[in-house]
Amino acid sequence: MTIHGISPEVLAALEGVLGRNGVAADSDGMAKYLGDWSGDHHGGALAVLKPASVADVQAAVRLCGTLGLAMIPQGGNTGLVAGAIDIGTDRGMVIINTERLNKVRLVDADNFTLQADAGCILQHIKDAAENQDCLFPLALGAQGSCQIGGNAASNAGGVNVLRYGMARDLIVGLEVVLPDGELWSGFSGLRKDNRGYDLKQLFIGSEGTLGIITGVEVKLFPKPGRIETAYLGLPSFEAAIALFRQARRECSDLMSAFEIIGSECMELARLADPKITAPVTAPVHVLIELSSSGAIDLRTLLVEFLAGVMEQHLVTDAVLAESSAQARAFWAIREGLVEGQAKRGYHVRTDLSVRISDIPVLIARARHLVSTEHPGWISQAYGHAGDGNIHFNVLPPRGLGETEARTRGSAITTKLYDIVNALGGSISAEHGIGRTRQRVYWDGMSSVQRRLVGTLKNALDPNGLMNPGCLFPPAETVS
Amino acid sequence: MTIHGISPEVLAALEGVLGRNGVAADSDGMAKYLGDWSGDHHGGALAVLKPASVADVQAAVRLCGTLGLAMIPQGGNTGLVAGAIDIGTDRGMVIINTERLNKVRLVDADNFTLQADAGCILQHIKDAAENQDCLFPLALGAQGSCQIGGNAASNAGGVNVLRYGMARDLIVGLEVVLPDGELWSGFSGLRKDNRGYDLKQLFIGSEGTLGIITGVEVKLFPKPGRIETAYLGLPSFEAAIALFRQARRECSDLMSAFEIIGSECMELARLADPKITAPVTAPVHVLIELSSSGAIDLRTLLVEFLAGVMEQHLVTDAVLAESSAQARAFWAIREGLVEGQAKRGYHVRTDLSVRISDIPVLIARARHLVSTEHPGWISQAYGHAGDGNIHFNVLPPRGLGETEARTRGSAITTKLYDIVNALGGSISAEHGIGRTRQRVYWDGMSSVQRRLVGTLKNALDPNGLMNPGCLFPPAETVS
Repeated sequence: MTIHGISPEVLAALEGVLGRNGVAADSDGMAKYLGDWSGDHHGGALAVLKPASVADVQAAVRLCGTLGLAMIPQGGNTGLVAGAIDIGTDRGMVIINTERLNKVRLVDADNFTLQADAGCILQHIKDAAENQDCLFPLALGAQGSCQIGGNAASNAGGVNVLRYGMARDLIVGLEVVLPDGELWSGFSGLRKDNRGYDLKQLFIGSEGTLGIITGVEVKLFPKPGRIETAYLGLPSFEAAIALFRQARRECSDLMSAFEIIGSECMELARLADPKITAPVTAPVHVLIELSSSGAIDLRTLLVEFLAGVMEQHLVTDAVLAESSAQARAFWAIREGLVEGQAKRGYHVRTDLSVRISDIPVLIARARHLVSTEHPGWISQAYGHAGDGNIHFNVLPPRGLGETEARTRGSAITTKLYDIVNALGGSISAEHGIGRTRQRVYWDGMSSVQRRLVGTLKNALDPNGLMNPGCLFPPAETVS
Repeated sequence: MTIHGISPEVLAALEGVLGRNGVAADSDGMAKYLGDWSGDHHGGALAVLKPASVADVQAAVRLCGTLGLAMIPQGGNTGLVAGAIDIGTDRGMVIINTERLNKVRLVDADNFTLQADAGCILQHIKDAAENQDCLFPLALGAQGSCQIGGNAASNAGGVNVLRYGMARDLIVGLEVVLPDGELWSGFSGLRKDNRGYDLKQLFIGSEGTLGIITGVEVKLFPKPGRIETAYLGLPSFEAAIALFRQARRECSDLMSAFEIIGSECMELARLADPKITAPVTAPVHVLIELSSSGAIDLRTLLVEFLAGVMEQHLVTDAVLAESSAQARAFWAIREGLVEGQAKRGYHVRTDLSVRISDIPVLIARARHLVSTEHPGWISQAYGHAGDGNIHFNVLPPRGLGETEARTRGSAITTKLYDIVNALGGSISAEHGIGRTRQRVYWDGMSSVQRRLVGTLKNALDPNGLMNPGCLFPPAETVS
């Protein structure tokens, strides 16, 4: 990709508004903003703007509007679908990164709410909540570097969605700079407010195409006094779904995670840390977590539940964490999968969702596809089974050149999407659409849906300056 | 109000599309659709259309579009803000009532979802879920006659919001006939789907101003195996808030209701049923409910929790329900408040929300207003305290003429809104805006918010034929 140089006049105008510290236009200064966490995607930009205040964001957006410069809102750049990087289109956009808007504004433990700048690192928000004996439950691999504004814009998921919902469910208020630079303040501190259209819903999950989120107000929860974790071995994915159903009925609202891991994934976890060993030997592993206040005897609940499901042969082997260190070791396996894959370099990465009962058939069909049509490629099935969400990833054979791997990987991805579509599922349970899936997303929609989505975009961003190329294929952006 | 007669040509055209059973245009046939449940509001209409299928709704909407007839979508007509009745404007609209779209389409207990026509009575949906050992938790006084489509359009709340959320949180898919008659199908059966804009959020809570909901897909939950209910006496509202905070920490996710009732309300409950007596004697009552699977010893949890808070003198008196009949008797008090008020005829009815910690000051200021400026009027404070939601209602002195009562009541309402606005609260925690609050809603918004709300309306309903006068004051509808 050729990166157009920025003209001195435009640079001066941007610096005039944001100061010299607020603008990077040289390749060294921009480098860290132009590649994503996975290393899969690199893009170009005329400049990276780093506003230090909400007023700065407004001024930057107004100036870009005047200059006709397209803008890419960017948080921690940990997304996986190139939603915050301009790949391939060579449009000469500016990135507006929110990293300097990084303050927790308010922790209101009495009302279980927290307000933060969009650029706050998720982990800092979790820490601020914990300091007040509260829990902010959004939990994902990238939490040490992703930003809450990006979590809101991408409607982030993670491992605790089962109990607490996605980012959308955790947000009570947003503050957004609109495409014309006006500020919409939607903070209220209220748990319940039914006054007309719920505007924040527009911006949550809109991936920066309707405005730039500058502040987020979230729900807090009491910090659980007890957590029980177990690592289970099961004969099949069918057994895992039957187990989930039973766990949902017996442990109901106290189940905070239900992750399934195909045993073939263990090799990946060991790539992240060679010392990792599976606590069980079985074709399918389940990591289950219950949490509650201190007043409930969770241990007994879990032990009795497991005794019952082992008697039914749904579970063949079970290890209960005897300490928080052991629980962390269980989670290290799950987290190692992501890290291990990253070490393998390019691979097919999906976040499919289907009806929970369809998970076994999804995995069976996907494995069959890989083993029959792409011998040597390695299937990996794991995910948030309680949400119907499976990361079915496929690693290229070792030694295959990256170019060939990418070509073949793209074909595999298409076939996996065909499988999920045939089951009435979603090609994106949590990662979003970005620039890597916008074509398949657009092609998969009904004409009515397309028209509605386009109507919203045109109504709120009539000049099409907000993150063009993301969500919308280029042709549709301007229609 | 004068009701314009419908012209024979228009009537014939409507009957041509919907059949004679699908159109009522005489006053007898229309009567039950023109007054709301509370008896507070009556309106007019050119005709009431009763489509028997989704295709009928589409055909009706298309014909109305061609004829330039404005449409009011209507469900069970149990709303309290005249969102589904044309009061006062004499515009000659048609009502499109969904009562004939009344089938539960699918109960998928394996995946904990249910699909239903918009006109399904809420209670029928709850029953269909229960038949499969599931719970659909939306619970409100009107559940025997309100319709799920109306619940979605108004983002209904109720007594279990604390644990399960409002209608918005319970809906996974919608089906909507758009203002041009096109059908948008947003059913998926998925628990997690992050593909672009979440269009259903637009229609939830939009009060029929953006389209007509014809189908709703909702989340189900495991039916609780145990429920424990207690009726408590407390010294003050401050104590009630402290109690809530502690209950949230100790009983966390198992608390399904936390209702507060000022003791002055008991007289009202007795209007509904003279046999009702309060189980406790104290200035403030709290009805608390815990629910869970059968595997958790809820009784012990609740008993130990109550022992602790009584030792702290937060609670002075506590009665645990010893049977489900006794639990129902406790709930009959809470439900009797609504019924008792209805028997008193016109009264000031609010559903205010503030930060939970501000509930005591809200109630104190509101009571002070009534006692000092409107002697003889009777304050009633009760509500879903765990959501920060208080129904602060005011009954006129017995014997006051209705016209005078309404004039004075309107002035009291305005002052109550001033109090809640000063606390940064909401004038509508759950009932919505409709036609009775649209002016105060509109006046209370920032200009940016007004512009966004208007932009959405104009983009999706460019001819302004969907429920004009609702949400938007008449002048803004056409701007």
